[in-house]
Amino acid sequence: MAERNVLKVLKGDAVFPPPIWMMRQAGRYLPEYRETRAKAGSFLDLCYNPELACEVTLQPIRRFGFDASILFSDILVVPHALGRDLRFEEGVGPRMTPISAEEIAALDDSGFHSHLAPVYEAVGLIRKSLPEETTLLGFCGAPWTVATYMIAGRGTPDQAPTRLFGYQNPDALDALLATLADLSADYLAGQVDAGADAVQIFDSWSGVLDEAAFERWCVAPVARLVKRFRERHADIPVIGFPRGAGLAYENYRQQTGVTGLGLDWTVPFEQAKRLQASGAVQGNLDPLRLVAGGEALADGVKAILGGLGDGPLVFNLGHGITPDTPTEHVEEMIRLVRSAQR
Amino acid sequence: MAERNVLKVLKGDAVFPPPIWMMRQAGRYLPEYRETRAKAGSFLDLCYNPELACEVTLQPIRRFGFDASILFSDILVVPHALGRDLRFEEGVGPRMTPISAEEIAALDDSGFHSHLAPVYEAVGLIRKSLPEETTLLGFCGAPWTVATYMIAGRGTPDQAPTRLFGYQNPDALDALLATLADLSADYLAGQVDAGADAVQIFDSWSGVLDEAAFERWCVAPVARLVKRFRERHADIPVIGFPRGAGLAYENYRQQTGVTGLGLDWTVPFEQAKRLQASGAVQGNLDPLRLVAGGEALADGVKAILGGLGDGPLVFNLGHGITPDTPTEHVEEMIRLVRSAQR
Repeated sequence: MAERNVLKVLKGDAVFPPPIWMMRQAGRYLPEYRETRAKAGSFLDLCYNPELACEVTLQPIRRFGFDASILFSDILVVPHALGRDLRFEEGVGPRMTPISAEEIAALDDSGFHSHLAPVYEAVGLIRKSLPEETTLLGFCGAPWTVATYMIAGRGTPDQAPTRLFGYQNPDALDALLATLADLSADYLAGQVDAGADAVQIFDSWSGVLDEAAFERWCVAPVARLVKRFRERHADIPVIGFPRGAGLAYENYRQQTGVTGLGLDWTVPFEQAKRLQASGAVQGNLDPLRLVAGGEALADGVKAILGGLGDGPLVFNLGHGITPDTPTEHVEEMIRLVRSAQR
Repeated sequence: MAERNVLKVLKGDAVFPPPIWMMRQAGRYLPEYRETRAKAGSFLDLCYNPELACEVTLQPIRRFGFDASILFSDILVVPHALGRDLRFEEGVGPRMTPISAEEIAALDDSGFHSHLAPVYEAVGLIRKSLPEETTLLGFCGAPWTVATYMIAGRGTPDQAPTRLFGYQNPDALDALLATLADLSADYLAGQVDAGADAVQIFDSWSGVLDEAAFERWCVAPVARLVKRFRERHADIPVIGFPRGAGLAYENYRQQTGVTGLGLDWTVPFEQAKRLQASGAVQGNLDPLRLVAGGEALADGVKAILGGLGDGPLVFNLGHGITPDTPTEHVEEMIRLVRSAQR
């Protein structure tokens, strides 16, 4: 079997030039994505259609030859599979009915895996269609991040509704996070059973918590998730991505047990290098350098390769690619990475 | 003269229980503020009315006896004094006409200090009315944070418009930041001339930049500002507050030359303690613990006093108090801090 470089790096080996993929690489910046999306109906229809989800997952691999492919889906299919309502408003984002403490106690997971069957099916189709050397990543949202949408009913800049809910209803939030941790572990395990080589946990809203809340609402649930996942798949790498965690990045890998550490673009290299000493890191180009192109892009790529290229690195953006990114800039980024000399 | 404890801490002495004040302590959570605000007309009318600005600045001192008072004003009076339009929409925030690269080159500072004369007058009135032992803080926005409003015309969650502007127009952004740094230094110096004992630089949007951008757009302009300010007031403490700077907090004090370091609520105590080794820190209660009250508040206060109480600490929130905070919770926080035993 051809070697999968992303897996190799996640297991701790340095590869140069580093393998590369992009968060949200199957997305609106691609004309072929917009075309498939228009055929599918709603965004959720696309997520639950195995053939079309497979098609959009493959599009960036065909066009750019990335080293990893990530399942096309959304972190909020997990609460949706618990019977919570969910809709995506065009250009606005997800909307849910805020969950109450009483509703948390009454959550019913009996239909969870059957609801998610089309996702598992998509993973199988993708693995069969991918080049042998391309790593396939499954993913889920971290319990805290998923909970913020369930409680606020939407994304908010600083997750104030959920922080306040947690301060006022600590037991209810603990219960919700535990439920999400266990089900997300099983969901990731199901993705691996279907063909995923590694998985990523997106904790997009972890950067808004104080230390005690971070430990209780981010770290503990992710540690629980990883532990339960490893009971079924001990050797599958797990990438944790606590976006915006700042100084709390320092102990995150040790505390949660994740294999690889996704770095957002604000992490400075002195500290990133320190984080890399305990295992693979992934990141961390500011997505707006990719939008800007030119010198801003070249400087950004050079800084990452110079700062982190000697150790185990998966080159990536520091957050998802934005819809206004020119595809030529993506090509230029890949050229810059793959032509780099030590 | 009665000793001003906040100044003492900023100069590096540990005081226990620590002195206390709150960012945005003169604000909408106070009924007496809302009353004065209604009399004043617009928010900006209040900022430019020395008697009423003095009155709202004093209200939280009268009610709670804080150890420091901070001038009631807004960081955006600086661009306003450069002739940029500015309005505050109720419940929405500031709105400005986005500035272009050409307009940056043509900025005219000839009316700057006369525009700000009512602010200097307010500072003088406040100092005369304050108890002898109360420290009076002046303030300004950091160049980067002020620039984000000037370029985007509003606050945005991740300052994408200004980051992209900077990647595409690096020289224009450098020029704007240099202008703001110099004028802000003179503005702070003018506040000290009028009676301020110390000053704070609010860099509320510094947490969205990658390392190179952070150094160029946050650190370098603040260092320039502090250097110029010190040419006029070498011994006046300067508090830097790079909110959300995360791992970039580590070198901020050394790089910028600020005296005290404002910590947002996400900074963990192990690292905060490390930052405290080089001088005073200020913070860092999650403002939502104050909204929640009860155990969430008591736990938060206890964690800060336990984590940072042995060194030079100014007790504060990790960001501004929110309008929905019950005044009883503020009283309770002060009681918890002032009754604390080592």
